[in-house]
Amino acid sequence: MIFLFTDFGATDIYVGQVKAVLHQRAPGVPIVDLLHDAPPFNVKAGAHLLAALAARLPRGSVTLAVVDPGVGGEREAVAVNADGRWFVGPDNGLISVLAARAAGVEAYSIGWKPESLTASFHGRDLFAPVAAILAGGQRKSAKLKKVTLAVTFGPDDLAEIIYADHYGNLVTGVRAASVPRDWTLTINGHELAYARVYSDVPPGQLFWCENSLGLVEFAANAASAQELLGFAPGSRMP
Amino acid sequence: MIFLFTDFGATDIYVGQVKAVLHQRAPGVPIVDLLHDAPPFNVKAGAHLLAALAARLPRGSVTLAVVDPGVGGEREAVAVNADGRWFVGPDNGLISVLAARAAGVEAYSIGWKPESLTASFHGRDLFAPVAAILAGGQRKSAKLKKVTLAVTFGPDDLAEIIYADHYGNLVTGVRAASVPRDWTLTINGHELAYARVYSDVPPGQLFWCENSLGLVEFAANAASAQELLGFAPGSRMP
Amino acid sequence: MIFLFTDFGATDIYVGQVKAVLHQRAPGVPIVDLLHDAPPFNVKAGAHLLAALAARLPRGSVTLAVVDPGVGGEREAVAVNADGRWFVGPDNGLISVLAARAAGVEAYSIGWKPESLTASFHGRDLFAPVAAILAGGQRKSAKLKKVTLAVTFGPDDLAEIIYADHYGNLVTGVRAASVPRDWTLTINGHELAYARVYSDVPPGQLFWCENSLGLVEFAANAASAQELLGFAPGSRMP
Repeated sequence: MIFLFTDFGATDIYVGQVKAVLHQRAPGVPIVDLLHDAPPFNVKAGAHLLAALAARLPRGSVTLAVVDPGVGGEREAVAVNADGRWFVGPDNGLISVLAARAAGVEAYSIGWKPESLTASFHGRDLFAPVAAILAGGQRKSAKLKKVTLAVTFGPDDLAEIIYADHYGNLVTGVRAASVPRDWTLTINGHELAYARVYSDVPPGQLFWCENSLGLVEFAANAASAQELLGFAPGSRMP
Repeated sequence: MIFLFTDFGATDIYVGQVKAVLHQRAPGVPIVDLLHDAPPFNVKAGAHLLAALAARLPRGSVTLAVVDPGVGGEREAVAVNADGRWFVGPDNGLISVLAARAAGVEAYSIGWKPESLTASFHGRDLFAPVAAILAGGQRKSAKLKKVTLAVTFGPDDLAEIIYADHYGNLVTGVRAASVPRDWTLTINGHELAYARVYSDVPPGQLFWCENSLGLVEFAANAASAQELLGFAPGSRMP
Repeated sequence: MIFLFTDFGATDIYVGQVKAVLHQRAPGVPIVDLLHDAPPFNVKAGAHLLAALAARLPRGSVTLAVVDPGVGGEREAVAVNADGRWFVGPDNGLISVLAARAAGVEAYSIGWKPESLTASFHGRDLFAPVAAILAGGQRKSAKLKKVTLAVTFGPDDLAEIIYADHYGNLVTGVRAASVPRDWTLTINGHELAYARVYSDVPPGQLFWCENSLGLVEFAANAASAQELLGFAPGSRMP
């Protein structure tokens, strides 16, 4: 299976071009959109969100991971195998959080070169063919060579809002397992107690919970935590 | 074929996680997104929209239907077979309109349990595996047991706006077959005569029509009926 | 492979209904969304964007191309074979730019008729079945008959903004191969020099480039050219 995690925009002209390449080069392999609206220009937030999603991806899968404001510049392309899952994308830190948390991890430079490479769309021209090559089990063709990741954010939690979903739930980069349930979090002057799920609190009430990815999330029952808290995506947790 | 009808957001992080489960558990079965932006928190509107869409789904298909503000609470999970089509989702009324209109319908509780179930994402953890089980023809594994739906909205039309599309067309829950074509509808002070299609009226003119799902729809030629009528989604038809 | 290029809205209720038809009539054929948010009501802009995308589509593919404000009126349906790629849609000019630029092109009327045809959704009822028929290699069933396109915009470039992507990049209908790199373009009072890619200029700086489709594009490093230039989609290039 090939997963896509990008900031190409789910409704824009880019994802279809990537999929055309994947279907041609890896016929019959299912392609799944994980996210195409990763926080724009925010590689670190994307890295933490991807790390949370990655933990649930099937072994043997290949993820094309591209949030790449430096495309066409000097950053390198990289393929990372983390606990049996492949990730292909720019070596700008995006893949580094999941790599730092993996039990077994190997990073590789990519020797394979496309016949033509546009300056701004390596997702289509380089990363997609390499993802297809790896998904097809033809690793030799990718001409991989062991390297160390150039940019790494490390394995630690990130105490920031890393994603706001369309319900207005605010996802943080903090793994919930380490946060005692009896903590009350004070966010922008609001006190948020823990609740298990929306329907455990009255409509409109703010709370924090462990979300379905295992992260601390600020939410409200049938209301937008983002509006109630006055948070914009990218805001730092106070 | 597996269809998805949810309020998970077409561009959000949830649908991909559902599809990863479906591809793993029902390999080779096509997955089609019907809608992921069902009216938020409005189960009744969603039920009427789903009923209109359901009439065209192929027999033997399985639809995962989730608008589920009560997830993690006391509402039950249900699988419904209506005229040879399966629907899997919460027993909160969402599947009840199509069930009430079906010639042959059977509702079942679901005995199958996932190894782990998050509080807020039954779409991924419970409904997706069950949909895959039914799509794979392994009905026995789902451990179904006949029940009566706990919440039902009945078969009758709903004289409300149930959906606003991106053109600004306003879809009602009224089936057009029962509305005489010579009726003029007065909506927010505007008089709307029947027209067959956009190009039958001058640009900017409001009209009502039978839409492609068989429902009464308020529309305008090359303009947004939603803006012209000053209607927000969820507004009641006057 | 079947490609979809429409203004049906990527997050709306229409695309899923089209795909249900395609999966049923052309089982196993991959379906790829190129774009479902083509500029609304702007057939000419869509024709130029489609022409740029079409150049990269694999030979033998079939593209359903529908931006069709005149649906249900007198415009005809058409199937066009351009350099070995099929395009199916309304004969309103949408397919005409790529046709005018193709080395070998043949246009056909469509004799095949659906059992039922709604007034407003020929995408689902007519174009999708015909696309599936052609993708399945059953061209005879489509009952094609050679015609000349009724509406054509010709092969020439279009000096307008034809698309604004979600980064705020502004795509023009001008092919970049013909524009000298030392030209400075004055747009709404801003002077834009050529740059190869975002990271070649300082953050926030406007520039023009050859985009990944070979078109002149106005962009800015880590910023929205659309906001900086004060351009709305559909604006004419000064």
